[in-house]
Amino acid sequence: MSVKIAKNSGFCFGVKRAINIALEAAQKHKKTVTLGPIIHNPQMVEKLNEKGILSVNDHSEIKGRATIIRSHGVEKNILEKLKNDDIEIINATCPYVSKTQEFAKQLGEEGYQVIILGDKDHPEVIALKSYTDGNAIIVSNANELPKQISKKVGVISQTTRNIEDLQELVRALVPRCNDLKVINTICNATAIRQEATLKLAKESDVMIVIGGKNSSNTKMLAKISAKIIETYHIEIADEIDEKWFKGKCNIGLTAGASTPDWIIVEVYNKIIECLENDQNLAACIDDIPGFKEKNDV
Amino acid sequence: MSVKIAKNSGFCFGVKRAINIALEAAQKHKKTVTLGPIIHNPQMVEKLNEKGILSVNDHSEIKGRATIIRSHGVEKNILEKLKNDDIEIINATCPYVSKTQEFAKQLGEEGYQVIILGDKDHPEVIALKSYTDGNAIIVSNANELPKQISKKVGVISQTTRNIEDLQELVRALVPRCNDLKVINTICNATAIRQEATLKLAKESDVMIVIGGKNSSNTKMLAKISAKIIETYHIEIADEIDEKWFKGKCNIGLTAGASTPDWIIVEVYNKIIECLENDQNLAACIDDIPGFKEKNDV
Repeated sequence: MSVKIAKNSGFCFGVKRAINIALEAAQKHKKTVTLGPIIHNPQMVEKLNEKGILSVNDHSEIKGRATIIRSHGVEKNILEKLKNDDIEIINATCPYVSKTQEFAKQLGEEGYQVIILGDKDHPEVIALKSYTDGNAIIVSNANELPKQISKKVGVISQTTRNIEDLQELVRALVPRCNDLKVINTICNATAIRQEATLKLAKESDVMIVIGGKNSSNTKMLAKISAKIIETYHIEIADEIDEKWFKGKCNIGLTAGASTPDWIIVEVYNKIIECLENDQNLAACIDDIPGFKEKNDV
Repeated sequence: MSVKIAKNSGFCFGVKRAINIALEAAQKHKKTVTLGPIIHNPQMVEKLNEKGILSVNDHSEIKGRATIIRSHGVEKNILEKLKNDDIEIINATCPYVSKTQEFAKQLGEEGYQVIILGDKDHPEVIALKSYTDGNAIIVSNANELPKQISKKVGVISQTTRNIEDLQELVRALVPRCNDLKVINTICNATAIRQEATLKLAKESDVMIVIGGKNSSNTKMLAKISAKIIETYHIEIADEIDEKWFKGKCNIGLTAGASTPDWIIVEVYNKIIECLENDQNLAACIDDIPGFKEKNDV
């Protein structure tokens, strides 16, 4: 019996940085808004709301307040609009996302037809596309490539995508292009987290993936894990159903880049609780590594 | 019973052009040399020799004579040496090969670590490498990639390679690079010839591939065909063994880019002769499409 947490679970550099920027802004300004949720974790967004950082969805709701740009970035024209309206802008865009926006712009300027590997409805991708003056083609995998494309193609990726999907996309493009430029913008932290999740999934009988249901990187972890073993994607501990653990010996836990540590701890404790409630499993609990130090996770 | 010749067999644009350039040079100059065989077909080289176009292997053998640069191109420093020696240069380098040399130079200048997909001993690749100031890495497939490579890689290919090998190479490079630029320099004629060969191999019981034993594109055709069906790579009709056709109904014939039409016709006629000699097969010969017009091939 074991309950293991995958290495590199939880907050990444860009998310930590965005939260810190938001908290600093909340100390400085009485009223602050974020344009869209600052990270894809409703529980964290709620905590920030308690500190006076309001998440609004539309420009019209800003009403002159200092505006935090979310970790996923924002469309170029919205940023310009904020500047024109003389709104104080506090930019919490992940630096890796900003860099990807620069690459998108640069590829367009160099005459490449930009292809973005990503989810067309994700705010990071929507913002990214705006830096190609709207001409980019967005595909979530190689099968979605249109029949007609330029012979000169530049590829970038949403920072949280899977490297294998990028490899397949590029493989499909090679025979169709004369000049193909690939900027691998998949964040290293994403790749490392995915590898750690894959490794743990292979050692587990069931996997719990924690993170926002709208979080792209969390959904990707769930997808990777589900290919290997029975997997449940949850946002909070209350979603756990103890039936999931019946007859399972090795339970694996991983969390997306926008999942705060306190939620990981809550989920861990909830799993232990389920095991304690199960007469058959309770006897094994003492074997769980780190069980006694569970609150130190 | 059928004997079919693959579409797009034989001389490509670059080879035809090189032969024409050589023949024109022979009319103008009494003594002409080519530095290395002008194309990879010994029989054609022999014919040109009869017209006073001598193939020499080393700079020292030129002895002031007008020098034809072979279709595969030549190393940059050799070209410079010829210019310094005031030798008249007649450049028969295939324009697609010249273009590939330009791309190699350009990628190097843009700071890319150049990787060439090709055969390191082939004159086209040796010449190509010289345009990267000798810094290029040459691999014949993805498995040959060294452990240490730059994060900024530019890929080009010998013009006669297989597109699938290029796709595999690029696929392997995607996770290892931040900035990957792929110039697809595989000649379109090569790709079309390979496809036609593959198609015919799938419809045949035995395949005959005609072309120089040192011809890269012919070897590639033989490799593609051998994956599908029993295949023999020959240079001339005399190499044919009638045993190859015992019990075979559908005979396929293809030829590399440097194989002259007269050799294709000789091979075709030789195959028909074998079938005529075989009592069991002779009865079927009238069914061979185009048999009566065999000399019109």
